[in-house]
Amino acid sequence: MKNLRVGLLGVGTVGGGSFEVLWRNQHEITRRAGCEIRITRVADMDLAKAKALVGDRAEVCDDGFSIVNDPDIDVVLELVGGYGVAKSLVLAAIEQGKHVVTANKALLAVHGDEIFAAARKKGVILAYEAAVAGGIPIIKALREGLTANRIEWIAGIINGTTNFILSEMREKGLPFAEVLKQAQALGYAEADPSFDIEGIDAGHKISLLASIAFGIPVQFNRAHIEGITNLQAEDIRYAEQLGYRIKLLGITRRRPEGVELRVHPTLIPAKRLIASVEGAMNAVWVKADAVGHTMYYGKGAGAEPTASAVIADLVDVARAFAVPAGLRVPSLAFQADAVLDTAVLAREHIESAYYVRLRVEDQPGVLADITRILADGGISLDAVLQREPDAGEHQTDVILLTHRCIESAVDQAIAMIEALPTVLSSAVRLRLEDLD
Amino acid sequence: MKNLRVGLLGVGTVGGGSFEVLWRNQHEITRRAGCEIRITRVADMDLAKAKALVGDRAEVCDDGFSIVNDPDIDVVLELVGGYGVAKSLVLAAIEQGKHVVTANKALLAVHGDEIFAAARKKGVILAYEAAVAGGIPIIKALREGLTANRIEWIAGIINGTTNFILSEMREKGLPFAEVLKQAQALGYAEADPSFDIEGIDAGHKISLLASIAFGIPVQFNRAHIEGITNLQAEDIRYAEQLGYRIKLLGITRRRPEGVELRVHPTLIPAKRLIASVEGAMNAVWVKADAVGHTMYYGKGAGAEPTASAVIADLVDVARAFAVPAGLRVPSLAFQADAVLDTAVLAREHIESAYYVRLRVEDQPGVLADITRILADGGISLDAVLQREPDAGEHQTDVILLTHRCIESAVDQAIAMIEALPTVLSSAVRLRLEDLD
Repeated sequence: MKNLRVGLLGVGTVGGGSFEVLWRNQHEITRRAGCEIRITRVADMDLAKAKALVGDRAEVCDDGFSIVNDPDIDVVLELVGGYGVAKSLVLAAIEQGKHVVTANKALLAVHGDEIFAAARKKGVILAYEAAVAGGIPIIKALREGLTANRIEWIAGIINGTTNFILSEMREKGLPFAEVLKQAQALGYAEADPSFDIEGIDAGHKISLLASIAFGIPVQFNRAHIEGITNLQAEDIRYAEQLGYRIKLLGITRRRPEGVELRVHPTLIPAKRLIASVEGAMNAVWVKADAVGHTMYYGKGAGAEPTASAVIADLVDVARAFAVPAGLRVPSLAFQADAVLDTAVLAREHIESAYYVRLRVEDQPGVLADITRILADGGISLDAVLQREPDAGEHQTDVILLTHRCIESAVDQAIAMIEALPTVLSSAVRLRLEDLD
Repeated sequence: MKNLRVGLLGVGTVGGGSFEVLWRNQHEITRRAGCEIRITRVADMDLAKAKALVGDRAEVCDDGFSIVNDPDIDVVLELVGGYGVAKSLVLAAIEQGKHVVTANKALLAVHGDEIFAAARKKGVILAYEAAVAGGIPIIKALREGLTANRIEWIAGIINGTTNFILSEMREKGLPFAEVLKQAQALGYAEADPSFDIEGIDAGHKISLLASIAFGIPVQFNRAHIEGITNLQAEDIRYAEQLGYRIKLLGITRRRPEGVELRVHPTLIPAKRLIASVEGAMNAVWVKADAVGHTMYYGKGAGAEPTASAVIADLVDVARAFAVPAGLRVPSLAFQADAVLDTAVLAREHIESAYYVRLRVEDQPGVLADITRILADGGISLDAVLQREPDAGEHQTDVILLTHRCIESAVDQAIAMIEALPTVLSSAVRLRLEDLD
């Protein structure tokens, strides 16, 4: 097998980690791959930083395009990030007939159709194991490990920052804003954390997973995304009393009507294995018709876990290099002519169970009014929790757990419930998934 | 890509499941694979059973060798099981230049060296994803997903029968023999359960995992194997009081001195994710230098979960069919010339922490004598639990948890402790792994 000459673009956390792991484990990797995989050229705008990383172990420059255009480079490793120059570099590399390995979920989620089509046209590999759930080989598991299955749904803890925040909120009973500050101090959240806490990052990842699970185009733009910024500590507490934990899940589900694609805080039964995934760890739960439930757990970020995925892709490229394009695993798991244009369902058509918290007058008949509205809307209840009001208080919290129904029915029912004179504030509504 | 004509040998649980899943999901599989994978011939000694399964969907016969020798068959799917005719069929298929997919862990663990060498010589694929942990794509994760890593250790719940029994023993406080009977009634344990409960089946699987994790020959014959037949309900209870659960783990670990390869009941911290894997489910925990900890969870047995793994192998074969042998993923993950003859360490050289339960006279100085012997042997203690004797009793249980040490030191210390006049019966000794 030929040795693989890799050009690394970007020496940030993941670029640095990939360079070091590939260097340190060169021998072990060659024992498996049967060829040498070497990063021979490195580019970064910050030339000093690149030199500090690489020393004399590779050639360093500040112009990624000079690597992309270098005929001695077989594979371009894009670890620049973002949508800007990264996109130009990836498309230029493809145009040059080079294989590309990237960890750039944002780029693929937003411009995936264009990029995957370009790679297909040129017959090059576009590999992105590191783009979802860091070191967990979830792309490989879905694309190759579960090929026998009709995949039904995926629910993933695929953003470590938010899982860390939710774990801390639950364990310590602290409000979101305070835990966020701690997470920033510890390096678990960025100075501008909005990509993570607003659910955008998880949205990018679940869009890619939906695509390879069901054979549909990457449709991040149609995903319904809610972050954790409005989540209140008391809902975490009530959920726990009812036997649930709240996780920010990326969820995608195939239904006869279309595909659900959504990110939001979700109540899940505390007894499910994925409910015990705490801190910055990631886990992806997959339900498929033949294998049933499987789960994949590990670190979703960090220099070396992400490097693990990046380098696994490089080894795959080394193996597939001399293989005709038609025999390779398709980038998006399904053959290009078998991709279906299945619609992503709008939020109103989501099917879920719901947690609804209401602030109500503590007086007879209130619960009867509320449950009547739900029943009229065809929404059946799984559980009701009514807090005993504190002495002297005349208000209390009512928590309702519904069975599965279509979200528009819940929209209507909640609007009617909020209009009741005995209901004192807006309802808090969270989705609940049994993951069964 | 060419269509793949598969000959199925054996229509037992897994054979039947594989036939049905491939038939049911033909369309979805073809969407991914880009070619049709069809079981065109089926053989089973029980011709009526084979006909009942297949109907007119494939040609049926009672002679596996006629399929193995059929030039129209591309891949032989060996689901006969056992060491006897299965071995002859697999070797004959290889000799005919056919690729082989099998779920037969026993065969590969015992005769793997011979079979893998034969396949290598003929340049054919020998795939066995279904041989370990059923539907969990753990072979693919280790062979391909973690190629960047130096794998340090693996600890797996890789036998569903024993995990079901241990879960029931813990939850219901029942003794082994009683739970075994229940498991047999429920179909979770076979009429002759010895392969499972003696740890042999887990031994087969961990031997294969060790081989692909470290690049060493399959060495089931050197594994140290203890089952769960002697495990007592009170040790499960004591473990729980100390914050641990007892699982039958297959463990393999690379140390400078050699490789540990062992199966035994093991105390693990209750807070570890794998400790919550209950019932007949499987999970494999992998520690590797770059990615850190990852875990893979799912069903380890059953018709359709195992079929999921079998068919994933068939799709891989379809893709690798026209690929030169040197470019394929090696059967045992490492290139044949890079396999190391690393020694499997004898039981005495295992390194572990230990749980030791002693029945002692309830009198002053007993604990001092015991801890002195341990200290003299260089064994330090992590925790001591001494039960209050019941009223009127003059004996009690002492439970010791040690830090990590070499097993021979524990052998010696326990021999000396058992010789103390105040120690009233043989020590119960279990291994404890922190999985950190």
